[in-house]
Amino acid sequence: MALISPSRRLRRTPFSEGVEAAGVKAYTVYNHMLLPTVFRSVQEDYRHLKTAVQVWDVACERQVELRGPDAARLMQMLTPRDLRAMLPGQCYYVPIVDETGGMLNDPVAVKLAEDRWWISIADSDLLYWVKGVVQGWRLDVLVDEPDVSPLAVQGPKAEDLLARVFGDAVRDVRFFRFGLFDFQGRSLVVARSGYSKQGGFEIYVEGGDIGMPLWNALMEAGRDLDVWAGCPNLIERIEGGLLSYGNDMTDDNTPHECGLGKFCDTQTAIGCIGRDALLRVAKEGPVQQIRPIAIEGPALPPCDRWWPVLAKGKRVGRVSSAAASPDFDTNVAIGMVRMTHWDPGTELEVDAGEGLRKAVVQPKFWI
Amino acid sequence: MALISPSRRLRRTPFSEGVEAAGVKAYTVYNHMLLPTVFRSVQEDYRHLKTAVQVWDVACERQVELRGPDAARLMQMLTPRDLRAMLPGQCYYVPIVDETGGMLNDPVAVKLAEDRWWISIADSDLLYWVKGVVQGWRLDVLVDEPDVSPLAVQGPKAEDLLARVFGDAVRDVRFFRFGLFDFQGRSLVVARSGYSKQGGFEIYVEGGDIGMPLWNALMEAGRDLDVWAGCPNLIERIEGGLLSYGNDMTDDNTPHECGLGKFCDTQTAIGCIGRDALLRVAKEGPVQQIRPIAIEGPALPPCDRWWPVLAKGKRVGRVSSAAASPDFDTNVAIGMVRMTHWDPGTELEVDAGEGLRKAVVQPKFWI
Repeated sequence: MALISPSRRLRRTPFSEGVEAAGVKAYTVYNHMLLPTVFRSVQEDYRHLKTAVQVWDVACERQVELRGPDAARLMQMLTPRDLRAMLPGQCYYVPIVDETGGMLNDPVAVKLAEDRWWISIADSDLLYWVKGVVQGWRLDVLVDEPDVSPLAVQGPKAEDLLARVFGDAVRDVRFFRFGLFDFQGRSLVVARSGYSKQGGFEIYVEGGDIGMPLWNALMEAGRDLDVWAGCPNLIERIEGGLLSYGNDMTDDNTPHECGLGKFCDTQTAIGCIGRDALLRVAKEGPVQQIRPIAIEGPALPPCDRWWPVLAKGKRVGRVSSAAASPDFDTNVAIGMVRMTHWDPGTELEVDAGEGLRKAVVQPKFWI
Repeated sequence: MALISPSRRLRRTPFSEGVEAAGVKAYTVYNHMLLPTVFRSVQEDYRHLKTAVQVWDVACERQVELRGPDAARLMQMLTPRDLRAMLPGQCYYVPIVDETGGMLNDPVAVKLAEDRWWISIADSDLLYWVKGVVQGWRLDVLVDEPDVSPLAVQGPKAEDLLARVFGDAVRDVRFFRFGLFDFQGRSLVVARSGYSKQGGFEIYVEGGDIGMPLWNALMEAGRDLDVWAGCPNLIERIEGGLLSYGNDMTDDNTPHECGLGKFCDTQTAIGCIGRDALLRVAKEGPVQQIRPIAIEGPALPPCDRWWPVLAKGKRVGRVSSAAASPDFDTNVAIGMVRMTHWDPGTELEVDAGEGLRKAVVQPKFWI
């Protein structure tokens, strides 16, 4: 494995000091920002995430803020999910599509008010698409990247930890809802959400200056809960079927191919830029789709490129994420498979660059 | 220094095999793609670049292709540089600005034909801005990222090496012009350009399948020229005043602040989206600007964040790139300095996190 070269362009976060002090071993780059990937080891981090509580520097989930009279109209232009019933205080997972229905990002939209939204983005410069659309349509809305850095608290003991720092009222926050909670005189958005299946919260830290104070307060309060610094865990997120934009899907894929049809209301999402393009696929369904795939044999090499998925020597898909799962005693993987071969139980072969492996389409993700 | 975690999202290039075989030691991430930063050491790579010839995997300079009747109109909408006199076969360095005059990218535009352009981009998803603008304005133009990966050949012996592979006609290609040259039956755009001051070319490799054949042909043909695998060199590019988007400037900066006023013809660039916003700054000039800065003392730590530039304890700017220069026996740096303190010879102080250093504004970049 190679080193990562430091530069200002790979932005540090308000929590970088804490991450470094905790002994981060590796990073990826996400929205031009450092995202930790390993602390002790991917396997140790995995086990700990499932049993205790971790604090994650996910500042790289940058926000695109929409503010002004056209904010809600603009938000609906961006996604085929019908937003009419969405209330302030709610978070929606929203596929963002271009005029061809191709996915540009798969963020969480946070509705702060009718005329103020945050879009908490995956790894692409969604700000550029939104600004371009606003410019072309001359919308009356301000779009920018505010000084807001999410800090995630994930794991079975996350609620206990957060209650110690923000008070017991945080326990009442429902899934994909948020409340405003005080920390050192600042009112912060705290949502029950996060990129794991172990439960937890994301704190939208507004103002980089309170990043380390909050990090330290969480570490201090969680000492007897065995709190660690952590990060999104490759194994756990594959087990949980949490997709990664740029890995598992790109702008070539529709939301339906990604199994995100349940987040699309294409018929009623009036105003969505990709609506025309998606109406047909919404009705007829896609010809390929994301599937959980178990790959047999010993632990695979890192999945750093799409691995061909074959059936009788013919290419029928690709694997985009894979890892050896300690809990399920197999290589868990996410792939895109053609409809001819996507039924659960279908036996396939995967070419991970070291000979073909037997693989089986699973009925559902592991957790 | 930490490791970089492999994933499909950090895309490999058509030349990655060659880069790995050459013993790459470190990477950065650029346009969601791996960009090598060190082979032997930054200092050894530097010396070699100035004396011999290197082959650089700069596939991360992705292309935004514009094709169709509105392509030229669109290109002019994107930049304050007047493109009316530009001919097919020319390359222009073009600041790209938004409606506020803030820089979104600083690419090279390659005019293939009146209705077909490549924009060879720096590190931001310019494709998203361009697609948004096209969508909003309903322009009649196709915009996408083609399978084109630049391979740079840089250094004093670059022309000799290229002549061996493409024939002597390549010697006639003038600076920032390109010609079409044959390789294994494919016609490739070969431009005299590149991200160094040592001279050289960029080959726009169309079709990933010929990436490694071309890489190998160059390595083979250049054996007695002491050809190496190389990469943009931090020291050399600072000495040469080659700016890096995301390091030295962001969307907060106008082209004029970046010293790129000579590439702006704001008065006559009719149609440019940022024209209104830039007219005033084009006339009056900016209040801060990029400057070469020499920083005294021993070699500095890596510049992984903006370092404050101070005058009598007051902040008057920032340093965004810095490295110890063997040839100039000082730390060479690029900074943004307020007009009150930007005159050559002005003595300043730089806070690189380890005590204040004396620094002096230079009359020009070093090479």
